[in-house]
Amino acid sequence: MGKKAKIVAEAYVDGEAKIGHNVSIGRFAEVLSGSVIGDHCIIGSRCIIGHPSKLELQKVDFSAASPKVSDLIVTEPVTRIGAGAIIRSGSIIYRHVVIGEKLRTGHSILVREHVTLGDNCVVGTNAVLDGYIRVGSNSMIQSNCYITQSTRIGNGVFISPGCAFFDNRRIVLGEGLERTTISDYVRIGGGTTILPGITIGRYALVGAGSVVTKDVPPKVIAYGVPAEVKGFQTDEELQKYVDSIETWQ
Amino acid sequence: MGKKAKIVAEAYVDGEAKIGHNVSIGRFAEVLSGSVIGDHCIIGSRCIIGHPSKLELQKVDFSAASPKVSDLIVTEPVTRIGAGAIIRSGSIIYRHVVIGEKLRTGHSILVREHVTLGDNCVVGTNAVLDGYIRVGSNSMIQSNCYITQSTRIGNGVFISPGCAFFDNRRIVLGEGLERTTISDYVRIGGGTTILPGITIGRYALVGAGSVVTKDVPPKVIAYGVPAEVKGFQTDEELQKYVDSIETWQ
Amino acid sequence: MGKKAKIVAEAYVDGEAKIGHNVSIGRFAEVLSGSVIGDHCIIGSRCIIGHPSKLELQKVDFSAASPKVSDLIVTEPVTRIGAGAIIRSGSIIYRHVVIGEKLRTGHSILVREHVTLGDNCVVGTNAVLDGYIRVGSNSMIQSNCYITQSTRIGNGVFISPGCAFFDNRRIVLGEGLERTTISDYVRIGGGTTILPGITIGRYALVGAGSVVTKDVPPKVIAYGVPAEVKGFQTDEELQKYVDSIETWQ
Repeated sequence: MGKKAKIVAEAYVDGEAKIGHNVSIGRFAEVLSGSVIGDHCIIGSRCIIGHPSKLELQKVDFSAASPKVSDLIVTEPVTRIGAGAIIRSGSIIYRHVVIGEKLRTGHSILVREHVTLGDNCVVGTNAVLDGYIRVGSNSMIQSNCYITQSTRIGNGVFISPGCAFFDNRRIVLGEGLERTTISDYVRIGGGTTILPGITIGRYALVGAGSVVTKDVPPKVIAYGVPAEVKGFQTDEELQKYVDSIETWQ
Repeated sequence: MGKKAKIVAEAYVDGEAKIGHNVSIGRFAEVLSGSVIGDHCIIGSRCIIGHPSKLELQKVDFSAASPKVSDLIVTEPVTRIGAGAIIRSGSIIYRHVVIGEKLRTGHSILVREHVTLGDNCVVGTNAVLDGYIRVGSNSMIQSNCYITQSTRIGNGVFISPGCAFFDNRRIVLGEGLERTTISDYVRIGGGTTILPGITIGRYALVGAGSVVTKDVPPKVIAYGVPAEVKGFQTDEELQKYVDSIETWQ
Repeated sequence: MGKKAKIVAEAYVDGEAKIGHNVSIGRFAEVLSGSVIGDHCIIGSRCIIGHPSKLELQKVDFSAASPKVSDLIVTEPVTRIGAGAIIRSGSIIYRHVVIGEKLRTGHSILVREHVTLGDNCVVGTNAVLDGYIRVGSNSMIQSNCYITQSTRIGNGVFISPGCAFFDNRRIVLGEGLERTTISDYVRIGGGTTILPGITIGRYALVGAGSVVTKDVPPKVIAYGVPAEVKGFQTDEELQKYVDSIETWQ
């Protein structure tokens, strides 16, 4: 337990959890075995850190053995949260998760097993990262988004509220885990649906309310149902976005 | 209280709740009067089982008296959960609910009053079953779905994440509870909106991101805004799906 | 503390919170400093009332200083909840929020700072009011809706489940807070996406599954992707809706 760590009596902290300096843990929170919490983190009330994985709980998880997601596996049974995180109340972060510095979340986010997040990410209220996902640094996944397994998200990506990703085009169980890639500095407008197996190229902007059924080239503006390329962004427009996301706190 | 039932000190279990053998109840959970929990169930932390109905809490519920949903009423004031359920943390299940064996849920699902679920169902994180609903066996309702009142869902149905159903086409209060029927072995792609009063025929596949404004015939592939029939599935394709959902655990 | 207030031992109520007569506070709830709870309110288990604002918690909030939302600021650091509210379990209401009488909510709603709600409003399960929002009286925001900052909602508005609003058309950080206005007695069908900076005129009806990309005139019926005017409502139709929402409880 670090210096000045503040844990209310109503919280549960496992004896093997490692708590950094100046960490605050709220009421009715659970910090379970395998948790490694960096200095100056704020863990809101009713959070669960270190929730057991599906394999640990149900004894079965086909994804865990699939070569389609083998690059995403976090082998250590830890929940490592970098310094300076603010994790708002009701959020749940599983074991087998590694998160960089300065994560900020809304309320009641869910991060399942085998997820890696870089530094300075934002995850909005009720967002679900449903396991087997990698996200770079400085990326934002806003409220009510559903990110499916086998999704790779780059640096400086902005996914607006209410977007949903899927991993199984024909909905035949056992044929899922189709790889979706959201490249660096992509922006996706709110309420967008992204079909399985899609790649969105660097700097592309996808308009709100779109249904993305095929790959989107770099730098374009695409939108509609289905999403089509409607224009291109100037280098100045792209730079303006990149600057805004890198300097934003 | 059954043999080997494990209830942490921080949980609340009503004296009249019936708890099977080898049941585990997590921290800060509430298992209220009328709960009947089958053997080997896992109730996650912060769940509420046996939440009072709208009629019990607000003294008023027009749906309760409507002939449009009279076939869906669960008369007994119980929350009956079959053996082998895994109900993940933060989930809320009301009274007047009957659930078969081996339910598996994500986190923070809501099942309101007068809901019946068959065996082997899956309900994903944040999914809302908003009362007066019947679901058959082996059906999956994935994350972030909103299932409205007066919805009947068959066996082996797969509803992908982020789908939403409604029960009131003109939005005049008092004219709701329009009956929607999702027949056996229907698959619905993610982010789909289903208007009130729709019937989707057996084995139909509705593509992701659709808005379903009229009935969908059996066995077809339909998608788009509004959803139109775009093709038909071979018997082999249908059988592949049926096999996959019946053997999946 | 008012007469007959009933607070279970497992709840936390701050010494400076003001609790009216006959108030009930559920298990594992937190009622924090600055809370002013009217008579006869029911606060469900695991609710948080008086959650600190982003500025109080993170020391930074650009929205707080923006002239685009200065008319929405609630200067007093209170959470004032009018008499007769039913706030269901898991809901979170921030400080700097003022709510009229008889609010009814679903479970796990979130109301962030600088939100004002009139009398007789309904907010459905998992709905997010993400700060800097004004809502009139007799309005309903249904389940899974995401209401963005800088949204003004009138009286008697009905927003169906799964609608999402956004405040930043080009997704350049610092250019957000575009003002969206939903006028009195507007109805919005479920699963609708509303782009930033939109005004929807009085009595308009927007159909389910729409993407609203430009202003909608008063009294029309509009729908589609993008939403277009498809018809007009008779005065009788409008009056039927107005009557239904004003008499509904």
